[in-house]
Amino acid sequence: MNPVKVGICGLGTVGKGTFDVLTRNCAEIAARAGCSIEVSHIGARRGSDIEGITISTDIFAVAEDPAVDIVVELIGGTTVAKDLVLKAVANGKHVVTANKALIAEHGNELFAAAAKQGVSIAFEAAVAGGIPIIKAIREGLAGNRIEWLAGIINGTGNFILTEMRDKGRDFHDVLQEAQELGYAEADPTFDVEGIDAAHKLVILASLAFGIPLQFDKAYTEGITKISRDDVEYAEQLGYRIKHLGVARQTDSGVELRVHPTMIPEKRLIANVDGVMNAVLVQGDAVGPTLYYGAGAGAEPTASAVVADIVDVARTLSAEPGHRVPYLAFQPDALSNTPIVDINDIETAYYLRMSAQDKPGVLSSVAQILSNAGISVEAITQKEPAEGQDHVPMIILTSRSIENKLVSAITDIEALDSIAGEVTRIRVESLG
Amino acid sequence: MNPVKVGICGLGTVGKGTFDVLTRNCAEIAARAGCSIEVSHIGARRGSDIEGITISTDIFAVAEDPAVDIVVELIGGTTVAKDLVLKAVANGKHVVTANKALIAEHGNELFAAAAKQGVSIAFEAAVAGGIPIIKAIREGLAGNRIEWLAGIINGTGNFILTEMRDKGRDFHDVLQEAQELGYAEADPTFDVEGIDAAHKLVILASLAFGIPLQFDKAYTEGITKISRDDVEYAEQLGYRIKHLGVARQTDSGVELRVHPTMIPEKRLIANVDGVMNAVLVQGDAVGPTLYYGAGAGAEPTASAVVADIVDVARTLSAEPGHRVPYLAFQPDALSNTPIVDINDIETAYYLRMSAQDKPGVLSSVAQILSNAGISVEAITQKEPAEGQDHVPMIILTSRSIENKLVSAITDIEALDSIAGEVTRIRVESLG
Ligand SMILES: NC(=O)c1ccc[n+]([C@@H]2O[C@H](COP(=O)([O-])OP(=O)(O)OC[C@H]3O[C@@H](n4cnc5c(N)ncnc54)[C@H](OP(=O)(O)O)[C@@H]3O)[C@@H](O)[C@H]2O)c1
Ligand SMILES: NC(=O)c1ccc[n+]([C@@H]2O[C@H](COP(=O)([O-])OP(=O)(O)OC[C@H]3O[C@@H](n4cnc5c(N)ncnc54)[C@H](OP(=O)(O)O)[C@@H]3O)[C@@H](O)[C@H]2O)c1
Repeated sequence: MNPVKVGICGLGTVGKGTFDVLTRNCAEIAARAGCSIEVSHIGARRGSDIEGITISTDIFAVAEDPAVDIVVELIGGTTVAKDLVLKAVANGKHVVTANKALIAEHGNELFAAAAKQGVSIAFEAAVAGGIPIIKAIREGLAGNRIEWLAGIINGTGNFILTEMRDKGRDFHDVLQEAQELGYAEADPTFDVEGIDAAHKLVILASLAFGIPLQFDKAYTEGITKISRDDVEYAEQLGYRIKHLGVARQTDSGVELRVHPTMIPEKRLIANVDGVMNAVLVQGDAVGPTLYYGAGAGAEPTASAVVADIVDVARTLSAEPGHRVPYLAFQPDALSNTPIVDINDIETAYYLRMSAQDKPGVLSSVAQILSNAGISVEAITQKEPAEGQDHVPMIILTSRSIENKLVSAITDIEALDSIAGEVTRIRVESLG
Repeated sequence: MNPVKVGICGLGTVGKGTFDVLTRNCAEIAARAGCSIEVSHIGARRGSDIEGITISTDIFAVAEDPAVDIVVELIGGTTVAKDLVLKAVANGKHVVTANKALIAEHGNELFAAAAKQGVSIAFEAAVAGGIPIIKAIREGLAGNRIEWLAGIINGTGNFILTEMRDKGRDFHDVLQEAQELGYAEADPTFDVEGIDAAHKLVILASLAFGIPLQFDKAYTEGITKISRDDVEYAEQLGYRIKHLGVARQTDSGVELRVHPTMIPEKRLIANVDGVMNAVLVQGDAVGPTLYYGAGAGAEPTASAVVADIVDVARTLSAEPGHRVPYLAFQPDALSNTPIVDINDIETAYYLRMSAQDKPGVLSSVAQILSNAGISVEAITQKEPAEGQDHVPMIILTSRSIENKLVSAITDIEALDSIAGEVTRIRVESLG
């Protein structure tokens, strides 16, 4: 086969990593792909001087280059990147991207345009960096009805939670360090508020359940309010707190939610620490499977970008009917299963409240929960600190519909014997 | 696209599971594959009466059936199964199999025959059951130079070692239970002696390193000699004993070995318990990735068989050049990298010996190791039991070439102050 010509747009962290991996491993990659894969054009605003390669400061020149077969979009963002991908597609080029925001927010439109042109858009690097999780769900588990999936899909958040647990540190303290180490952006909102994780979760849910991308319907809750106390109490109960993306197929639709989650420490995924990512997928035939690796970084992400390039290279002249569908299911087979509102999801809960240290408080709280049809699975009351008349009371509840739990909390907070707000963390057994 | 017609040969555990999954999930599978996938012919020695499906007691009738597109070989063994696959290939049919023994021992010949006919042979189910590890290495990590991989790829062995650790039980006691539970075969040799794991390791190493299948060169050591003492001492040192398949690219060739291995308990793979499987793969770009799930069982294995059927269905009329190569690398790009003899491998070791409880013994042992260029990383000497003059002495060594260690052991065993044999377990940090 003729060499396949790749144009890289954006020579930042991932762009540079992709160039390096393609160059360093060119012999192995050609031996796998059955043809050599050459970077023939680079779009980089600040210019660059790599020998033998056309460099354009206007990235759109890459999408217009007749010699380029595959345009690799690594500039990030959802505006110029979207125009770039649409331009490449319009010119009959295949696209590889690592851009989760772009796919989660505009994927439906991009895939429709690509389908019309008969070209591929591949995005393995958009979720969980180097872990081939998209391929695993889309192809490896193609025989299964996927029941649910849960993922640690933001390395920064996981690093912060791991440090809080291991070293008893505060959220803000660790965040600052993560920023200094370069794990967290100067504006950490996307990471710690769960927006980045929601982008990825939305993509995974589409692949797993055969639904269109619906980023606007994902529920997102950050980790900024997790306290050291909660981390410690979770530990004492045999749990870990992780910032999980959870997608679940239920009778009333698909649950799609990112939030701090208590999970049993004996689960493998509870032991995924630091900046590492992992996704747990439950299929009806295969049972639970887990995929673990680096979720970010120049070369881990490049690993996924290059895998996509090899995939696309193989099908360059294949008819579209022989390709793997963008979202795992054929475009005309996507279902309109509704997304469940967060108020209607079902899960178990950890509740922490400050209770007056006197008889009867526990029973009033239990009564409120019981009236809402929620049972108490475990309860711990701490010793009062010197001179304090309130003690921390921790409750693990049965599974319940969120809005019932929320209104029970309102009633609990109204009790004279309970001071301040009730802290609530969702609990998933992942069993 | 027209429906794809599948012929299943062998209606045992996996054959029945495959039929069930294809039937139950037919709508989802068709939505992914872009065409319906129908079982049109079953080969089952004892007959069967599934409505609307041709049943032949002679499995070769399936391979001769002009209506069948894909022959699924699930009879097991390496004799009839080999003839069946060759017959199917000769008739221009694609093949899907779960048969690790067949692929590991005769894969080179089968793939050559298939390449001539331009048909696929897919074998995801042959390694680690439902975990899509073959696809992960072959396609998901296609951009990497794979440095090493290590896998828990026999569920029976892992169940036995887990029980020994969790409950302080003896090997033979647990084996018997595993046989009663149906995890272990009546003849457990394949499982506990590591032959089954070696079949799988040989396949993984080919995919990872681009070498032909060389089952005869794999080193295999079972778990039958692992004692409760070793399990417990490993634990005290912060390690777990796992029956690992290890393949590593070194300057002198590829190491290919299955043996009991001590690994740090903090590694995720050390916490893979019971019958579950996991494979850890280290790529130069991606770093470490881990894949976990059920390594056996009717439906987990069927999950992988069906994924292969979907893959093959997609490329049915594609030109062979557009398909993923059987062994990840193009057939003409396989390298003749030698396999390293077990005597020449490099690893660290755990040594346990029965030492006389008197001064100077430790220093004679350390001297022997030091003369061989091996250093002592850690040492523990246990208290003598009531009335005993020998105590267990445990040593963790630096990494060393195996034959140097073996001759040092011979010298240690010759010491008057050491009674009996030195027990040796290889140690891998997997870091
Ligand atoms: N970093 C990771 O670990 C990681 C992991 C997974 C996915 N991703 C995704 O990969 C993509 C790239 O991320 P990154 O970390 O590589 O970002 P980055 O380091 O900021 O690199 C982006 C590059 O694109 C260039 N660029 C932006 N707009 C451009 C334009 N209009 N014309 C020319 N060049 C332009 C930037 O140039 P200037 O320097 O001149 O601005 C920069 O060199 C993003 O979608 C991100 O979400 C990243
Ligand atoms: N079981 C697992 O969890 C698992 C996991 C991964 C891979 N595998 C592989 O999958 C394959 C099948 O394993 P399995 O567990 O399903 O074995 P199994 O339960 O023994 O099933 C094999 C079936 O093939 C039939 N068969 C054998 N030779 C035949 C012949 N000449 N003509 C017609 N039928 C014949 C047997 O029929 P009879 O009953 O009449 O003998 C039996 O029904 C093996 O290669 C195995 O290594 C199994």
